[in-house]
Amino acid sequence: MYRTHTCGELRIADKGKEISLAGWVQTVRKFGAITFVDLRDRYGITQLVFSESLNSQLDAQPLGREFVLQINGTVLERSNKNANIPTGEIEIGVSSFVILNKSAVPPFTIQDDTDGGDDLRMKYRYLDLRRNAVKKNLELRYAVNRAARNYLHENNFMDIETPFLIKSTPEGARDFVVPSRMNPGQFYALPQSPQTFKQLLMVSGYDRYYQVVKCFRDEDLRADRQPEFTQIDCEMSFVKQEDILNMFEGMIKHIFKAVKGVDYTEAVQRMTWEEAMWNYGNDKPDIRFGMKVLNIKSAFTLGGEIVAKGELLAGSEFSVFNDAETVVAIAVPGVAEYTRKQVDELTEWVKRPQIGMKGLVYIRYNADGTVKSSVDKFYTEDQLRAVAEAAGAGKGDMVFILAGAEERTRKAISELRLEMGERLGFRKNDEFKLLWVLDFPLFEYSEEDNRWVARHHPFTSPKPDHIEVMIGNSPVITNAAEYLKHPYAQIKANAYDMVLNGNEIGGGSIRIFQRELQEKMFDALGMSKEEALHKFGFLLGAFEYGAPPHGGIAFGFDRLCAILGGSESIRDFIAFPKNNSGRDVMLDAPSTIDQKQLDELALKLG
Amino acid sequence: MYRTHTCGELRIADKGKEISLAGWVQTVRKFGAITFVDLRDRYGITQLVFSESLNSQLDAQPLGREFVLQINGTVLERSNKNANIPTGEIEIGVSSFVILNKSAVPPFTIQDDTDGGDDLRMKYRYLDLRRNAVKKNLELRYAVNRAARNYLHENNFMDIETPFLIKSTPEGARDFVVPSRMNPGQFYALPQSPQTFKQLLMVSGYDRYYQVVKCFRDEDLRADRQPEFTQIDCEMSFVKQEDILNMFEGMIKHIFKAVKGVDYTEAVQRMTWEEAMWNYGNDKPDIRFGMKVLNIKSAFTLGGEIVAKGELLAGSEFSVFNDAETVVAIAVPGVAEYTRKQVDELTEWVKRPQIGMKGLVYIRYNADGTVKSSVDKFYTEDQLRAVAEAAGAGKGDMVFILAGAEERTRKAISELRLEMGERLGFRKNDEFKLLWVLDFPLFEYSEEDNRWVARHHPFTSPKPDHIEVMIGNSPVITNAAEYLKHPYAQIKANAYDMVLNGNEIGGGSIRIFQRELQEKMFDALGMSKEEALHKFGFLLGAFEYGAPPHGGIAFGFDRLCAILGGSESIRDFIAFPKNNSGRDVMLDAPSTIDQKQLDELALKLG
Repeated sequence: MYRTHTCGELRIADKGKEISLAGWVQTVRKFGAITFVDLRDRYGITQLVFSESLNSQLDAQPLGREFVLQINGTVLERSNKNANIPTGEIEIGVSSFVILNKSAVPPFTIQDDTDGGDDLRMKYRYLDLRRNAVKKNLELRYAVNRAARNYLHENNFMDIETPFLIKSTPEGARDFVVPSRMNPGQFYALPQSPQTFKQLLMVSGYDRYYQVVKCFRDEDLRADRQPEFTQIDCEMSFVKQEDILNMFEGMIKHIFKAVKGVDYTEAVQRMTWEEAMWNYGNDKPDIRFGMKVLNIKSAFTLGGEIVAKGELLAGSEFSVFNDAETVVAIAVPGVAEYTRKQVDELTEWVKRPQIGMKGLVYIRYNADGTVKSSVDKFYTEDQLRAVAEAAGAGKGDMVFILAGAEERTRKAISELRLEMGERLGFRKNDEFKLLWVLDFPLFEYSEEDNRWVARHHPFTSPKPDHIEVMIGNSPVITNAAEYLKHPYAQIKANAYDMVLNGNEIGGGSIRIFQRELQEKMFDALGMSKEEALHKFGFLLGAFEYGAPPHGGIAFGFDRLCAILGGSESIRDFIAFPKNNSGRDVMLDAPSTIDQKQLDELALKLG
Repeated sequence: MYRTHTCGELRIADKGKEISLAGWVQTVRKFGAITFVDLRDRYGITQLVFSESLNSQLDAQPLGREFVLQINGTVLERSNKNANIPTGEIEIGVSSFVILNKSAVPPFTIQDDTDGGDDLRMKYRYLDLRRNAVKKNLELRYAVNRAARNYLHENNFMDIETPFLIKSTPEGARDFVVPSRMNPGQFYALPQSPQTFKQLLMVSGYDRYYQVVKCFRDEDLRADRQPEFTQIDCEMSFVKQEDILNMFEGMIKHIFKAVKGVDYTEAVQRMTWEEAMWNYGNDKPDIRFGMKVLNIKSAFTLGGEIVAKGELLAGSEFSVFNDAETVVAIAVPGVAEYTRKQVDELTEWVKRPQIGMKGLVYIRYNADGTVKSSVDKFYTEDQLRAVAEAAGAGKGDMVFILAGAEERTRKAISELRLEMGERLGFRKNDEFKLLWVLDFPLFEYSEEDNRWVARHHPFTSPKPDHIEVMIGNSPVITNAAEYLKHPYAQIKANAYDMVLNGNEIGGGSIRIFQRELQEKMFDALGMSKEEALHKFGFLLGAFEYGAPPHGGIAFGFDRLCAILGGSESIRDFIAFPKNNSGRDVMLDAPSTIDQKQLDELALKLG
């Protein structure tokens, strides 16, 4: 060992001890004949004092930032204590030192607020990783990993490794493929998830499986998507949806406690997908704050009740609302006093192409109880007050209304809600709100192919009540314009997402476990019998030999860590991430390979 | 939940409880009007009793092997107790049952001694995995995984995930490559190990790293090699070899205790590579038994002492020994009585092409002290007795002697030693002997390229004493025939292997951490400056910014599990292994991919 202690370890109780330390030079300060050095390692920082007697050696071997240093010395009490660091009461009187390695001047400063731009930091990721901010993220990641494993272990789950070189069965996202040298012209695929393997493990009787596992998707990368990403992947047998919800909210609560010290004792809220869409305008609502969406147009039945309040705006000649497919409102608390300028700025905000609205209607619910609106001339004050109150506004609040085509308008009101939540400080990094979103549609309509695609994946089971609808009806869509009237559009899935602070952190489903139903599902997705057998014959086969009822969930580990770390950027929580073009700029990968390698693989560049 | 308890859980103390179970039908036995069913799940087997009242339902819905069954019933005390299973004192009086899924007749029996051949079991791996023998292996694997992680966590190691889509830098084995759609004509590689990444993490100051991680090598597969395999990969900073040896024998001992209940309290033996080669004929000796190899020919200096006993056979005209490069002997205990036939059979054994010897010379050291040998006419009895005793033989033992070219003969005597150890029962599955082999040569000579290749990998550091030899001499080999006289042939590495029962289970080294020495190493391996920069520029760059001294080790997780499980076949310890052609016969992978996929990747089959 090059050290007896770490740089975060020594305390006043160690006073007088002869010790050695090794680490990196954080700073060098010279006061007269004395040199002070802050020595840093993973565990902390310790102050070193080099007295005059070492000056000739220091002159011959000057220390610089990021030099690797080993010292011997004695633990001394500091006269000038530093209460900000755990080693702040002591310093080391250095008796001898060795420079283990020198360092060039780093291309950016190794500090929390670095001067390094993104590209530079990625190129020198090994230096970026030295920064405390990044190190904390990776430490948090490890703590989450550990807490998840401990919880799952305690609950009888087994970590079972599934293969990485599998078969290409593209369905949804593209596979990364791996040419096989030993089988020329053939390819392995890298798994998009271990989905079918974990289901096979249930067929094999393993009962409870987990894995913290890399997955791969060759998608066009958006900001903050990685071609390789990590899942906490789990599956259980002999369970119903309720069992899975309980088990995994337990896991997240355990992680909160172990990693953040947060006792999340309250029940995790639940809402159906339809409730989420109508009340928040999206399927992963941030419920750290209210501002529920009021639907003041289309009559819509939710859970047996008509939730649209179209009557509130009836009898007016305001064509913008009258002609719109959808009119929705939110009440923003405490901003009735917004100036004209502030409202104009918000109007511009919703008119940006990303949001795509034509305008923004407001209703001020003044502190004195009066109501003022940009559509005063079309509606009575009573009408407007009724809308405001239906949206949940009280005195001092402001209601914003958007109108337009349904999908876009719902999305826009959701964005506006999140933006206002952000501006008003309702989206606190240190507040955590979990939510289960349930009862997703089983299918989505693909306009491109005029067919159904699986909203989750082809292994998700319909709600028991809806199995008959699926079996009893043809998936063929004869009238594309009216696809919503097809019986398949109403089929709900036994699927669930866990949402944390407006981010989907996990999703799963109860699976199909009968061969006939699975075949019907492949058929519904437009897959021929031959194609289904070619791609998933092993799974259909497995279902013939006593497949148990089962279900599971996969958590997006990178995103979960980012949110727990108070960030929305997953890259900051990955040791060696790729950029938005899928490149590792440190390695300069991908790159060309030798002709010899291509020849061996029997491949030609096209 | 489909159950209140598992099939391994209920005891006599639960008598009278109303419970539900779910699992697989192991057996159905009918005695008169009563039906007995053994219900199996991951946790055990519970006996069910179906009384006469359920017979009409059983007739309508007959149960078969591997059917998935859910039952409600009452815990009863068995009249006929079964002491062999934990649930053997009770049985369940079934009140109602539901068949959750049927099963076709499995293609082989789901039992420890199955009638399924290897191919059939691999095709239906999901059924093979139901067999208790395979399940136990995967449970052991998980226990080893868990024990390793716990130990490393306690010792401040951090699990940090390294990327799977990296840069191809073939050096040694072939890389699997992954074409990049977004960067046409470019490829990622799958990592052969996270070697350079873990070193970068040390440069980044993470101090102690671990990962249980998949690695990939596109090699021509030998029996029991997998294209994807798992390593327990570790690295530490500010350590010397001794620190690593202590840390990781601690880990293995912890695993022994946690997984096998074995207290491995003795010190782990150590020997140098040269000792291993001369005393056992290979670099991973099985030291569960003796039979050390006696070198009775070439004078060889080991640790300053001449260990060859050439004088023992001096003065004879026996040309087989006189002309051989190497003559080696082992003393096999207790087999002096072997018949002529037995010796002949062994002679044939060493003459098989895999061993490749011309013959086998024996010396019987009879119980009465007399000595009898196949080379009696060339040597005196005293000479032969001296050889036998030098080999460690006593009365009742037999000495076997092989002669020939050095490398082949050493390998042959090692094989013979292992074979005799096996035959005599010295290689017990439940006995574990650890060994460190140290001081490996840094380089190996490549006849094909007439240059040096790294014996371990190019990041391994020479012994400190040998750095000067490396820096002070040119790597060029001017006289290929005498490469052993090149100074580089004598350079030893700071490398170590951990050997368990004759299998290498882990290997590692202290790493080079200075740019100049790393460049010299690449140069020694015949890599041009440009090539070194292209392939490993990021690592050379990292070494300029304060790289600490560091070292590490990687354990072959699959093999470690196999040995702990008393098997030498790693496939039995992998959930979904590939066959010897690298195929997954269950998935039928690798396979062809769509033309559309090829087009998107800008690839043509050659």
